[in-house]
Order: sequence, then structure tokens, then C-alpha cells
Amino acid sequence: MCFKGFRSSANTKQGFNRKMEHLSLPPLSRVAICGGTHGNELSGVYIVKEMQKQKQDKVGSVSVITVLSNPPAIDVCRRYTETDLNRCFKSALLSSPITDSAPYELRRAQELNAQLGPKGSEKAVDLLVDLHNTTSNMGVTIIMDTINHMTSHIFKYIQTNMAPVPVSGIQLDLSPSESYSLDSVCKCGFSIEVGPQPHGVLRADIFNMMKKAVDLTLEWVQKFDSGRTFEGGDVEVYSFVKSVDYPRDPMSGELTAAIHPNLQDNDFKLLQPGDPLFLSFSGEMVKHEGEALYPFFVNECAYYEKKIAFHLARKMTQTFPSVSVKSN
Amino acid sequence: MCFKGFRSSANTKQGFNRKMEHLSLPPLSRVAICGGTHGNELSGVYIVKEMQKQKQDKVGSVSVITVLSNPPAIDVCRRYTETDLNRCFKSALLSSPITDSAPYELRRAQELNAQLGPKGSEKAVDLLVDLHNTTSNMGVTIIMDTINHMTSHIFKYIQTNMAPVPVSGIQLDLSPSESYSLDSVCKCGFSIEVGPQPHGVLRADIFNMMKKAVDLTLEWVQKFDSGRTFEGGDVEVYSFVKSVDYPRDPMSGELTAAIHPNLQDNDFKLLQPGDPLFLSFSGEMVKHEGEALYPFFVNECAYYEKKIAFHLARKMTQTFPSVSVKSN
Repeated sequence: MCFKGFRSSANTKQGFNRKMEHLSLPPLSRVAICGGTHGNELSGVYIVKEMQKQKQDKVGSVSVITVLSNPPAIDVCRRYTETDLNRCFKSALLSSPITDSAPYELRRAQELNAQLGPKGSEKAVDLLVDLHNTTSNMGVTIIMDTINHMTSHIFKYIQTNMAPVPVSGIQLDLSPSESYSLDSVCKCGFSIEVGPQPHGVLRADIFNMMKKAVDLTLEWVQKFDSGRTFEGGDVEVYSFVKSVDYPRDPMSGELTAAIHPNLQDNDFKLLQPGDPLFLSFSGEMVKHEGEALYPFFVNECAYYEKKIAFHLARKMTQTFPSVSVKSN
Repeated sequence: MCFKGFRSSANTKQGFNRKMEHLSLPPLSRVAICGGTHGNELSGVYIVKEMQKQKQDKVGSVSVITVLSNPPAIDVCRRYTETDLNRCFKSALLSSPITDSAPYELRRAQELNAQLGPKGSEKAVDLLVDLHNTTSNMGVTIIMDTINHMTSHIFKYIQTNMAPVPVSGIQLDLSPSESYSLDSVCKCGFSIEVGPQPHGVLRADIFNMMKKAVDLTLEWVQKFDSGRTFEGGDVEVYSFVKSVDYPRDPMSGELTAAIHPNLQDNDFKLLQPGDPLFLSFSGEMVKHEGEALYPFFVNECAYYEKKIAFHLARKMTQTFPSVSVKSN
């Protein structure tokens, strides 16, 4: 509940005067770190397992709850068993009755909501960090479903402290009830998405980057809780505009082209009109048309079935006020 | 049958005097190009589909048979549905009775053997090229199950004509009856393995490399059939020594370490004693001991379940005689 009042309708630099405002916020006493929401994204699975092995359930005064979100999917090393768990957390789905034919993941979403939420309630965990991998060359990306000054601060902290590793931010503007991802069941949350890594593979470099981002998150929370004031400022974030599918045969629906080599691995590099998007199997090029935009999730394995070759975004500057913990 | 007499017991440079020998061999009149033996290795799937769409069933006088080896696995974009098809082609399995409980892939192996073999018979296709992808950084790798001068020639031709793209050769020394892979059902054959590419993802650069290797194979066959003499020579090949598993918890069997960043993506780079192999989740290093050897299939996704972190090989020089087509 703590950040609901701070949603801003402005995605641009306007609309917030950081000189005029300072926010005193309640401490973050319970933080959840979740891995294996997609069972074949192995960095998060092994980070959570390692934290559980090390009995890392407290950092300073902060309670750390570690969760393997989708154990049956982890066991078979697949994204999900029946349906994508990370699309099951809209309020309407969380309150729908569970029938015998309901997919496992819908039941599991309601369990996780009971354990870590309930969404929108005072009982909900203060901060939830959900760990994901992508086959796209997105480095470390912080995905924020709702606009929230606390998550902006943590994103900025991770970005500053991981340099020169590229850390990008994706800012959606969903209401908590519309938000479909696990991190929406808590008072505030975000996903840490790290790539490129093939699903079902564990790379030490990707593991270490994700671990560093988790450690920095917990470090920020500790500093915040112990009274540090974090100055206001701004961050660049990518704001979703639209998704683009692969060219497909109109009859069979099969792919007729792959991502063009100039676009492959170039997530967050501005696409100008005329830049190549796809290369067909017979050698023809498909070009970008219209507004210059930034691609991300380029050639993500799990999005073939969702008919998404990549997303496109605008770059925005998001301004946030200084924050400190509210004294009792 | 045509090359059975030419198996050599020598993996080293000794044992063959190319000045003394020339081989006249029957023409290669039927060539099979197979993709989707593993349903989530997409380059081969799309190359074969494209060849079928273009009705590319003849190159010069050569009949080209294109085959999608495991359609149900391709449909669900998984390696296999019940068991690994590319381990089902030993002679004993191909002649075993099919019961109701037999996995789909065993039945499919017998179908493919009837279509493209039967293994060891005069009816078998002259050359079979099976298309595979790997998550390992192996560039283009030609995997030859049995030692055969024809495949050595084609490997050398691909390597020479694709430079500076790295093209490596792996030479096993299995008898045709022991050989478990699809290409063993034909008179001669090899796999083209191209990576790194995540399974379930199609990359244009990897697609183009594989397509080039297929085109060069067909070009070589055409030249051979039309009377060109290919001079003898030698090639460097990697000869399998042993497999190494990930460090695992002795109780749970779970991984306790990932491939070390120094080894990751360094397939075919010599591992000296003392070089790092693994980095444990708690930060300890595991080092290589014993003989200096060459790693390959480093961190291949599909080999986690086979308990293989990488294979190790010795580098050998393989010598082959000049060849030309036998005139009628």
C-alpha cells in the first residue's frame, strides 16, 4: 500500500518538482526474492537456492523471504507446465474460483498471492524482486510495472553501482489490478531481467550480474531503513509503445524471416526509419517504418509463441523526489 | 556401403601414404538433408522447410531428399517428445521389435531407417547431412561418426571455402552398427552443428552459416559426380577423449557450480592443467588436472540432463587420399 499514492501520470520530465518535495516513507521490513517464476530461467533459480542454502533470511533488520515460484516447471526445466505463471496475477484472476480444470499456474498464483500479498492489502510484503533471464541481449534490465518513486530510486542505485555493466529500465504504467506479473502482489516490486542467456543454461557471467543487482537492492533497502536520505534526481527509462511480430506465411502462420543481423543483439539501440528489421529466408529485407523507437526483447525465445519478435519503446526521463524513512 | 572398406584405424598422421593411393568411388546420386532431428534446433528446421518450399529436390544430377526428422517435437519446439531421437540409430535398436510402450522416437527411427537406409544396405542414401544447433560457441562443426575419406574431403572443402568463419571437425571412431545418430543409416554422413544459438531461437547469422555449409556440401557432390579429382591432403580433427560433468551436491544431485567464465565460449581452445573449469555458487574455482586437452560442447543446454558439462578431445591430423568418381 505504501506507494499507491505516489503513482504519477507523467512519463516525461514535466510534472514533478523535486526541489519542492521530499517523501518520508515507511520502512521496508519484508523483502521477497523470487526465482523460477519461469522454470527454465536458471540464474534466479540458482540464486534463490543458494540463498536458501546459506539461510540468508535476514539482511540487517530486513526479513528476506526467498521463493521458488514454480517448482514443477523448475523440475522439468520449462517456462511453465500449463500456462505462463507470470501472466496470472491480474486482480480478476487472483480472485477467480479455481475449478478442477484450472491450470496449475493459476492455482499457484493464488497460493503466491496468499503467501506474499494479498495484492493491495496491508499484509503484503513491502518489496518483491522477481528474477528472470532472457535470450535477448538486454544486459541487466529493471522492469517496473507501475510508476513508483521507490523502485526508481533502487533502479538508479543499481545502475550507478554496476557501471560499466549496462543497466536499463523499462517503465510500464499499469494499475496494480491490471498488472499481471508476480511482483504486483506486493506493495512495490520489479523484475530483474538479465541476458543474453539461453533458457535451460546457466552462465556464470549472467549469474554474477544478477547476484550483484540483488545484493545492491538489499543494500539500498538496508541503507534506507537505517535512515539514509536518498536525493531526488532523474533516470532514463524505456516506455513500451508496441510489439512487432515476425513476418509469417498468411496461410500456415509459419515464420518466413528471422530478425535481421543488424537488429539482433542490438536491444535499446535506436531504430531509425529504413533500418533493417527482418531478413527473409529467401534473402529479402524488411525495414522499420515510422517513428524512431528503441527495440527490446529482440528475439526472446519465449515470445515466439506470443507472436512477438521484439517490443518498441520511447525513451523518457523520469524524475523522482528525495526519500527517507519515516521515523516512528 | 561404398565407404566401408575405407575405414582407417589410424587417427594420427601415420598409416596413410597419400602419394601411393588414389580412390575411385561410385557417384553420390542421392543426398539427404535432414533438419529437426532435435525439434528445438531451429536453423535446420527452417533450412529444410525453405528447401521444400523452393522444391529444391535436384542439384545438377544429384537427387536431394529433404526430411523433417521429428515432426511432433518440431510442433512443440522441444528436443524430443519421449526420448532423444538422435540416440536411436544403433543397429540393435533399429532391429528391435516395436511394442505399444515403445517411445515415439524409436518408432520414428525405424521409419527413417526404412526411408533413408536401411543401415548397411545397398539401398541406403549415398550421403546424409543432419543439421543441428548448439548453445555452445562451436561455430560450424562437422561431426563425423566414422572415419571416412569422403566426409574428410567434404569437411576440408567446407572449411576452406567458409574461412574466416571457424569450421572445426570432430572425428569419432564408431563402427556403423554402434553409431547411434541419424546420419549412420546412410552410406556416409555427418552432422553440421552450428552455434551458439539458444534452442527455440532462430538467428539469421547462424542460419546463414549453416545454409552456406549445406550449399558447399551439395557443390562438392556435384563437382565430384561430374568428374573433378580432389587431391589428397590432411585435416586437423578433434578426437573425443572423455566427458566431464558439472560439480553436483552428492545428496541432491543439484549443480553446485557453473562453467567458469574463462572456459565459457572457449570451445576448441586448449585447456592446460591448472586452467579454471568451474566457478561454484559460493565463489570457489575448480581447475583442470592432467593432460592438456581441447573442450567442446561447453555448456550445451541439452547435455545438463545427460550429466555433461563439456567433452574433452585431442587434436589429431587426419590424412586422406585423392578421390575421383569411378567411371562406368
